[in-house]
Amino acid sequence: MINSFIKYARELFGAGFIPLHRPVFEGNEREYLVDCIDSNFVSSVGTKVIEFENRVADFTGSKHAIAMVNGTAALHIAIKLAGVKPGDEVISQALTFVATCNAISYAGAEPVFIDVDLDTMGLSPTSLQRFLERSAEKRSNGTFNKLSGKRISACVPMHTFGFPCRIKEIAKICVDWDIALIEDAAESLGSYVASRHTGVFSSMATLSFNGNKVITTGGGGMIITDDSELAKRAKHITTTAKVPHPYEFVHNEIGYNYRMPNLNAALGCAQLEQLPAKLVAKRTLFDYYLTAFEPVKGVNLMAEPKQCLSNYWLQTIMLNADQTQHRDDILKATNEIGLMTRPVWRLMHQLTPFANCPRMDLTSAEQLEQRLINIPSSPSLLEIVE
Amino acid sequence: MINSFIKYARELFGAGFIPLHRPVFEGNEREYLVDCIDSNFVSSVGTKVIEFENRVADFTGSKHAIAMVNGTAALHIAIKLAGVKPGDEVISQALTFVATCNAISYAGAEPVFIDVDLDTMGLSPTSLQRFLERSAEKRSNGTFNKLSGKRISACVPMHTFGFPCRIKEIAKICVDWDIALIEDAAESLGSYVASRHTGVFSSMATLSFNGNKVITTGGGGMIITDDSELAKRAKHITTTAKVPHPYEFVHNEIGYNYRMPNLNAALGCAQLEQLPAKLVAKRTLFDYYLTAFEPVKGVNLMAEPKQCLSNYWLQTIMLNADQTQHRDDILKATNEIGLMTRPVWRLMHQLTPFANCPRMDLTSAEQLEQRLINIPSSPSLLEIVE
Repeated sequence: MINSFIKYARELFGAGFIPLHRPVFEGNEREYLVDCIDSNFVSSVGTKVIEFENRVADFTGSKHAIAMVNGTAALHIAIKLAGVKPGDEVISQALTFVATCNAISYAGAEPVFIDVDLDTMGLSPTSLQRFLERSAEKRSNGTFNKLSGKRISACVPMHTFGFPCRIKEIAKICVDWDIALIEDAAESLGSYVASRHTGVFSSMATLSFNGNKVITTGGGGMIITDDSELAKRAKHITTTAKVPHPYEFVHNEIGYNYRMPNLNAALGCAQLEQLPAKLVAKRTLFDYYLTAFEPVKGVNLMAEPKQCLSNYWLQTIMLNADQTQHRDDILKATNEIGLMTRPVWRLMHQLTPFANCPRMDLTSAEQLEQRLINIPSSPSLLEIVE
Repeated sequence: MINSFIKYARELFGAGFIPLHRPVFEGNEREYLVDCIDSNFVSSVGTKVIEFENRVADFTGSKHAIAMVNGTAALHIAIKLAGVKPGDEVISQALTFVATCNAISYAGAEPVFIDVDLDTMGLSPTSLQRFLERSAEKRSNGTFNKLSGKRISACVPMHTFGFPCRIKEIAKICVDWDIALIEDAAESLGSYVASRHTGVFSSMATLSFNGNKVITTGGGGMIITDDSELAKRAKHITTTAKVPHPYEFVHNEIGYNYRMPNLNAALGCAQLEQLPAKLVAKRTLFDYYLTAFEPVKGVNLMAEPKQCLSNYWLQTIMLNADQTQHRDDILKATNEIGLMTRPVWRLMHQLTPFANCPRMDLTSAEQLEQRLINIPSSPSLLEIVE
């Protein structure tokens, strides 16, 4: 199976080194960066930041967008503004990038791990409902974990690898249980549920523009929200909570230095112009993979859920349940020959810092960890295969 | 006095808008940014980050430099790595930018405000010694505040506006009392005590490359240290505490997403090449100010302390003690005509989030707040005056 996997991958891509995800700079990147330098505004104030925010807000169909240094900072602030307090619990998935759980811990809270769905790889509304019914109770001042006695103040599901999770069902449960919902849309810029962009199903969602994402600002992240008050708060608290004044320096709460520099936003503006083309390329790559790997037995390519559009950020194969013994050999063999692949992240409850966090049955997450492999996903791969 | 102040400033600069501090991009900025895009590495991995770190380490005479998203992040990590634990107290000055105190609070600790020296505007070793003798006691497990019962685990003095504080005396006291010392050198790149760069008198120091600083990376900061183990820890914890592996994602503690992107480091490399020239320009500007304001009664230009070199980041005038009633009028009048000036930051103990922190007598800080005004300091002003 490994050999046939490599054979078909090599037929697609030839013999060179193939990274997992490589950014492409084929638009106005160089021009906008030079403009930014010429404008003399490279730091946290500048027209490019505003332009980038407005364009992402338009693209996602959100009223407001607040650009930050990275997706982790955006998660931290969203969790804080959602009302999470030290000592609270925040529901999330064990199958996620560590930033989700780090951000929860920056707010002094603890993640609670709920299982994911096998098909979406995102938080399972069925597991969420089951956990809340069994372990939580609604009180006048919020929903509490009956076992730990702690308040469950927020829920942070992720649209894993750009594949939308069942966010509408999750949102309904969170409303019923009076739990703040924050979509971790770090990986899903360009992914939709029905015709609505991921991230607009919750009061706040977070995006990432890290180097490996669909578009990049070097380092960058964002909160999107329709709530003007939250947007204002997010901007204030990420700008060191400085009270606006032409020359006085007064800060009215503990704030953060989290705003995206104008330089990085300039790169973002250029990248965003190419996003529609990148999304088409990534979708086309999926089609190539579908055809190329069709003869390979024992694996399936992950496809977008029904009525959803995935941005296909990371193309993902799933080994059949009886083929998991091949996972490590495939990873080893492909990486050794310069065909970059990777497993999903080590599950959060298996990491030392989160090993003692409360968790439910995580059978699906644990199965997926054994069965999933991300394969090369750069939109530029089309130039090779076409 | 206000009129004569404005008259002499206008004689120097003419009638245009004069910002407080404007970055200058007259070197290889555009080229290096384009190179960075061409290299395809814009994010947290890349040769420009390493090059920028090595060059700053060389410039400051430090063994290691770890580049981060901004100075606040660098302070946060330095404070954490110095061993500051939640519930501790950290000594600092009330006359500082809010980032110092925010970073202390991110670590779960509380600032204790000690007075500054009138001539350096930085932490006063005399006040520090007095505070420790009166209020602290050494125990087997550290130095404790006798009144609050809390451990005093670190001391963070700042080289205010680039003027070196009495860091050698402070360092000696910190050694005697077994308190970790972290120099906040955010404003003092290019400032020296005798022939040693500020920041090398403590186990770790932090720099800032914000847009208003002597050199800028858009947003950026750095820890410099001679301690290889601390440098390694700083790099690890700011890279999400990821355990190095070609494809596995394992994180062994709660980490941060704080590394400087390669794009910003590219800008930093170009800026650093111009640093010596900028320092000369700022020193020359000081000389112009000295001559131009000589006839203005009631104010003095702040000069570098003896045996020290200031980078003259922000040029600063001090009103005579009997002239403080003019401060607000000068600020108002100058800003109204586009000649940017500003007072020092609102003192930390006067800000809501830090109003209840322990503090000593702060007479000098309070005096300086009434007497100091920062005046236009861009190195590019030389083009106007010369």
